[in-house]
Amino acid sequence: MARPMGSVRLKRANPCTLALGVLLCLFILYFLVSPSSPATSNRLASVTAQHHLSPPTSPYRKSSTKSGLQLGPPPVIRYNLNNVTITPNPIENQEHVLILTPMTRFYQEYWDNLLRLNYPHELITLGFILPKTKEGNAATAALQQMIQKTQKRGPEKERFKSIIILRQDFDPAIASQDEAERHKMSNQKARRSVMAKARNSLLFTTLGPATSWVLWLDSDIVETPPTLIQDLATHNKDIIVPNCFQKYYNEEKKKMDERPYDFNSWQDSEVALQMAAKMGQDDILLEGYADMPTYRSLMAYMATVGGDENLALPLDGVGGTALFVKADVHRDGAMFPPFAFYNLIETEGFAKMAKRLGWQPYGLPNYKVYHYNE
Amino acid sequence: MARPMGSVRLKRANPCTLALGVLLCLFILYFLVSPSSPATSNRLASVTAQHHLSPPTSPYRKSSTKSGLQLGPPPVIRYNLNNVTITPNPIENQEHVLILTPMTRFYQEYWDNLLRLNYPHELITLGFILPKTKEGNAATAALQQMIQKTQKRGPEKERFKSIIILRQDFDPAIASQDEAERHKMSNQKARRSVMAKARNSLLFTTLGPATSWVLWLDSDIVETPPTLIQDLATHNKDIIVPNCFQKYYNEEKKKMDERPYDFNSWQDSEVALQMAAKMGQDDILLEGYADMPTYRSLMAYMATVGGDENLALPLDGVGGTALFVKADVHRDGAMFPPFAFYNLIETEGFAKMAKRLGWQPYGLPNYKVYHYNE
Repeated sequence: MARPMGSVRLKRANPCTLALGVLLCLFILYFLVSPSSPATSNRLASVTAQHHLSPPTSPYRKSSTKSGLQLGPPPVIRYNLNNVTITPNPIENQEHVLILTPMTRFYQEYWDNLLRLNYPHELITLGFILPKTKEGNAATAALQQMIQKTQKRGPEKERFKSIIILRQDFDPAIASQDEAERHKMSNQKARRSVMAKARNSLLFTTLGPATSWVLWLDSDIVETPPTLIQDLATHNKDIIVPNCFQKYYNEEKKKMDERPYDFNSWQDSEVALQMAAKMGQDDILLEGYADMPTYRSLMAYMATVGGDENLALPLDGVGGTALFVKADVHRDGAMFPPFAFYNLIETEGFAKMAKRLGWQPYGLPNYKVYHYNE
Repeated sequence: MARPMGSVRLKRANPCTLALGVLLCLFILYFLVSPSSPATSNRLASVTAQHHLSPPTSPYRKSSTKSGLQLGPPPVIRYNLNNVTITPNPIENQEHVLILTPMTRFYQEYWDNLLRLNYPHELITLGFILPKTKEGNAATAALQQMIQKTQKRGPEKERFKSIIILRQDFDPAIASQDEAERHKMSNQKARRSVMAKARNSLLFTTLGPATSWVLWLDSDIVETPPTLIQDLATHNKDIIVPNCFQKYYNEEKKKMDERPYDFNSWQDSEVALQMAAKMGQDDILLEGYADMPTYRSLMAYMATVGGDENLALPLDGVGGTALFVKADVHRDGAMFPPFAFYNLIETEGFAKMAKRLGWQPYGLPNYKVYHYNE
């Protein structure tokens, strides 16, 4: 499949703003309630209503249709959003969910899992952001191919309401996305700062007035319960995170097994707070590294065999592999700090910021989602 | 004019999330490139393309038009946004500007001044947020009336691209909006925290992928140069603020005069930094109060008679009465902290956050906008 878009560059007139600028949208896909004939469709496209957020809008450009259709004064149209709710019964209340995914590599299993989610797809908008690297380009191409397949040729019930793909115009912190390299402690601050900016760009650009919930879902999450959205909404928490595990072949036991993967969901400890108090304000505390023992209570280790899936515990830090957030939490201003915020960064900083705004994160130690195993 | 909308309430299933939830959209006005006949318009509305952000979208609902129009598979449509730029020549580059206004009272002079802005109106989207108080309801009604007048019956060139009105569902911090009450120091933290949340709600909900610039313009700014947007963009700064003054009748001189109004734009001082260092982390430093002398250099006092309008000085804090921001600054995550952030809040906290993200605010001491005089 030919890639239809060229590369994107912001004209940076002010070079000293470095590579911090954000976001060029490569394209936006709309899935229209389209009329039957292509001819009508074209005519509609030129005269049709467009939301102010929908590019490119030129409401006053004279119509150049052959029909000589004259443009009347633009009417005032009202959309009453009194029905936008955020409740434990999102399907019943037709609540819109925005699934946001920062992506560097495209995993077929991620897409397949997405398609298996049985929350009504017409209530789901997908948003992606990918870096402008070779790897990011390849992932974009693969993603577009699957979007074409699903949205154009797939069964109607699998099609999502709409899909937005953004491309970063800032540099990724490290070139390689290999797991070993990514997880090196020395790379973490720079890496997570860039990741935080990517999340913010995606969030600020895609959150709309009708969004009830935001599901952050990393591109390497390859298995979740199909009822993920409904299950998480049922808890009616401001922020809630499942426990992210990884399936692997256990050489000792000679069979498939699973192990905790995401260590960013935790309850704070006195030790960690004291460590932070001694740190410089730009330093960050990281979790899951042996040479920085924080003695925080990690949700990763709280899962118990046969434990109650509905057990919800309050958390102080959250991971972003799968993270379900009431849209109002973000609207209040909770974002992913790309800088040290109370010595925390990215999703952990987000949890702290949400708490400062009066919202409480929770975790589900026995409700699992699974990370890709490289 | 009858008010077409009823009141709005979020169903809060979880009462302990208090009044922190945000935003119900009362309605969104679209100004469509409409076809000539109302009949065609109605038909279009039911089958037309809608952005994922445009409510309410039910792309897969079966068409119930009498014509028996069958819905085909939703096509994939691309919008190439390679041309979204942020430059000193915004008109030439057709850059979209989002003007955001938190509003409690409607001033006719504000609206008239808005209409006088000679940046192409078809590139301007307006966003408002108003509290759900008696005063807010009255302002909403007045605002809607002017919108109807401008967008429906006004000259085409005055009409804006689109207008969004949001209503807060959290309580205003203090009931009265009288100037004396609003400016009481003891009320400032609560008031500015609520204002910060209103700004965040407005920002997160309206910023789109095609937005190049955001102009924050308070609803009591009643006079600006008509070239405000172009003038500010020319400087090509990440964040730039004009100097906000107020016209009044000078009893001594027996003639009209002007005085500084907004004291939130400043360069930091050693004294202020030391004061902050001694404060609790939830305390905030406020500017413009005699009993809290910070010795910061206030832009309010930097204006000189006959001074260079183009003089731009770096700032550490900014006010929000008129505030021009590259959309990328917000996309990186810069929002208005409703909590103490480095002992700063709201617009001043925003400046600090932007700086932490690597963006630099500037001020124009001799380029003035004027605040309403109560």
